[in-house]
Amino acid sequence: MVRGRISRLSVRDVRFPTSLGGHGSDAMHTDPDYSAAYVVLETDAEDGLKGYGITFTLGKGTEVVVCAVNALAPHLLNKDLGDIVGDFRGFYRQLTSDGQLRWIGPEKGVVHLATAAVLNAVWDLWAKQEGKPLWKLLVDMDPRKLVSCLDFRYITDVLTEEEAYEILQKGQVGKKEREEQMLAHGYPAYTTSCAWLGYSDATLKQLCSKALEDGWTRFKVKVGADLQDDIRRCRLIRNMIGPEKTLMMDANQRWDVPEAVEWMAKLAEFKPLWIEEPTSPDDILGHATISKALVPLGIGVATGEQCHNRVIFKQLLQAKALQFLQIDSCRLGSVNENLSVLLMAKKFDIPVCPHAGGVGLCELVQHLIIFDFVSVSASLKDRIWLHLLVPSYISTCARMCEYVDHLHEHFKYPVIIKKASYMPPKDAGYSTEMKEESVKKHQYPDGEVWEKLLAAQVN
Amino acid sequence: MVRGRISRLSVRDVRFPTSLGGHGSDAMHTDPDYSAAYVVLETDAEDGLKGYGITFTLGKGTEVVVCAVNALAPHLLNKDLGDIVGDFRGFYRQLTSDGQLRWIGPEKGVVHLATAAVLNAVWDLWAKQEGKPLWKLLVDMDPRKLVSCLDFRYITDVLTEEEAYEILQKGQVGKKEREEQMLAHGYPAYTTSCAWLGYSDATLKQLCSKALEDGWTRFKVKVGADLQDDIRRCRLIRNMIGPEKTLMMDANQRWDVPEAVEWMAKLAEFKPLWIEEPTSPDDILGHATISKALVPLGIGVATGEQCHNRVIFKQLLQAKALQFLQIDSCRLGSVNENLSVLLMAKKFDIPVCPHAGGVGLCELVQHLIIFDFVSVSASLKDRIWLHLLVPSYISTCARMCEYVDHLHEHFKYPVIIKKASYMPPKDAGYSTEMKEESVKKHQYPDGEVWEKLLAAQVN
Repeated sequence: MVRGRISRLSVRDVRFPTSLGGHGSDAMHTDPDYSAAYVVLETDAEDGLKGYGITFTLGKGTEVVVCAVNALAPHLLNKDLGDIVGDFRGFYRQLTSDGQLRWIGPEKGVVHLATAAVLNAVWDLWAKQEGKPLWKLLVDMDPRKLVSCLDFRYITDVLTEEEAYEILQKGQVGKKEREEQMLAHGYPAYTTSCAWLGYSDATLKQLCSKALEDGWTRFKVKVGADLQDDIRRCRLIRNMIGPEKTLMMDANQRWDVPEAVEWMAKLAEFKPLWIEEPTSPDDILGHATISKALVPLGIGVATGEQCHNRVIFKQLLQAKALQFLQIDSCRLGSVNENLSVLLMAKKFDIPVCPHAGGVGLCELVQHLIIFDFVSVSASLKDRIWLHLLVPSYISTCARMCEYVDHLHEHFKYPVIIKKASYMPPKDAGYSTEMKEESVKKHQYPDGEVWEKLLAAQVN
Repeated sequence: MVRGRISRLSVRDVRFPTSLGGHGSDAMHTDPDYSAAYVVLETDAEDGLKGYGITFTLGKGTEVVVCAVNALAPHLLNKDLGDIVGDFRGFYRQLTSDGQLRWIGPEKGVVHLATAAVLNAVWDLWAKQEGKPLWKLLVDMDPRKLVSCLDFRYITDVLTEEEAYEILQKGQVGKKEREEQMLAHGYPAYTTSCAWLGYSDATLKQLCSKALEDGWTRFKVKVGADLQDDIRRCRLIRNMIGPEKTLMMDANQRWDVPEAVEWMAKLAEFKPLWIEEPTSPDDILGHATISKALVPLGIGVATGEQCHNRVIFKQLLQAKALQFLQIDSCRLGSVNENLSVLLMAKKFDIPVCPHAGGVGLCELVQHLIIFDFVSVSASLKDRIWLHLLVPSYISTCARMCEYVDHLHEHFKYPVIIKKASYMPPKDAGYSTEMKEESVKKHQYPDGEVWEKLLAAQVN
């Protein structure tokens, strides 16, 4: 089925000037220009299909990731796609363990973001050749084959290949019904669009009203820069959504460990389901300490969007450092590494609530979480840890995927949200392809949009 | 004293074709071309002094780090050096927390290597302006001022600014004597030059004989690719150096956690003092497990050359995951971040045995470890954990710094080794400056050396 030799890899620096409107602003990223390193793979096959891959960035530094993609390119050029996906574990290892390049990682930061962009394109191309949306390619794939795409290096102490296979085998039971459920009702989402840190209270109110009208029941608010501001904003949003709906908070790594515990004690009255990224994404033991301190307050810890690889996720699970695990489709090494994290989360019985937003993160990660539900977790319920403490959470606490209402118009196959749920994509591929016109306009620094903005800066 | 506005930052990609001789080869990096992103800072001051900074790389990917250095450059250009070092904590925070760039780190991988190169240049320039070698600048600096250079974000749960200050205050006692001791006898070193994985047994024997003649008493051997090879090579070297001298082993992250424990049980008969990098540098809990399993065998765990920031070191210490802590002068955020790690190590009473080798790592890190002895650790003895288990180690087990005998000829102020010890540098600066002729020749891809090599590849 898989065909063609990779004949061309191109990569472009695409940036959207979101900082102008305060969209995406938080306690650590005050002026993000949502951007992407955008990879296109071409083959010599007659079908003319191309693979599109992205990794998400915040503006400056996209050129550094582009440079890293070019450094990885020789590993792909002139390779048969069949050989790549036929030994995907080996290919993943080859990319991430290049004897010279691994020094500037390994499996973290710029090179790993570049790996994600490149492999996302490979998965897109593979799914397109199979004529299936990525989630369906994964759902239909033989568990043995699926497991052969994963690199178990450094995680065998918690998950062996055989254990992974057994989890997937068990996931076959009831798969068909769950797939139908997804197609009918979609995967539950929550919204982060209402309460960026840079928004005024008026904007926040207006967006929150609108979201309530649109049927949203789960809301996330950015916190961490100023306690009094946080109290005011959290009160405002809790009052608007009422006591029954779910509120999450996100500090984007702003605090040290003791500070996180103290600050959250002050915000506990607003009944957040979780505090997200309370401290450094590298601080496994710190998250464990915070987690332990907040359980009596009925607040869970969520993290993951900047956890740089499966080894960090492994330890977060081992250390009981989180109650909600947030995968990211562009920071980990593509589908391959994300699958290993989904399987570890299943083993530890921790719900996966993916990070999304940015540019294309919603488009991509919906495939992973729908696969997770159909073939791995088999559940939309949360585990019981919080229910035991706070019975009122039983009704509202469920698995869910982040949603942000930005920049979807630039994608050829944008997400479809119905009744606050992600509806499974039906087009073949990984939903990664952008509209060529958008790419041209937003290319940095020579696209039309940036030429104007940069000229204005000079004047 | 400090003067000038930074008027120019240039960065070059300098590579040495070390892979041709198998130098530097290990179980994960089989063909390194020792390289550097080489930064030069110029100011508008009349003294004409320049600051030189490097970060070490392995060939491919140096261009990615160069790209990241350029992304950081706007933070330095047109700044007064006095403002930078006058609020060095603030400047460090500015570099590492850039609201857009931090997404592609934060404080890890390519951007952090670039941060190291840039800040190493700042420290070199500062020390030159003060007319002192860097170690002496640090030793003479008021503890309050020293502490103001450090960013305590994410480590206050184990080390507060006040605790750091107290450690440095205590270190003032006997400082003068320790400085004299260093000037007279130098800082003890061990050699890694004899036993790279790519060397034949004959080469290994020859280099080992030579090292013994030169007075070396501590030797490191690369292991991890093949158990039978390891046994043969370890037996060979242990037989040559005898039972009293110190042998260390280095697996360069080759193993999973259970594998590390099993493999080392097979190599225990050769009495290694430590196993270095047994598994992923990100696996704090894994190192703790290995450490616990190997203590009964009298083998310590050492790691650090790829630990990407102070948050990882903090946790390695908290988790009792290492017995020897190996700082790296180019992976952490320069002197600033390394000082915070030295202070945490002191608090946990863990000896620091720096990583060196590569290009310039010996030149740089000698300054840090000499400062550590004079002002922080105040000791050349190891802590007692192994002595309790293996009394015979009392005589041989001491603090030491890695040494590799490669590429020093390209530096303007190369290390001086006497009787297997680093003699304190006397020239002003951080010993980071390379000979312009070497840089020109080895610039990639247009230097003379590479033009020839690349032309030969084409033919």
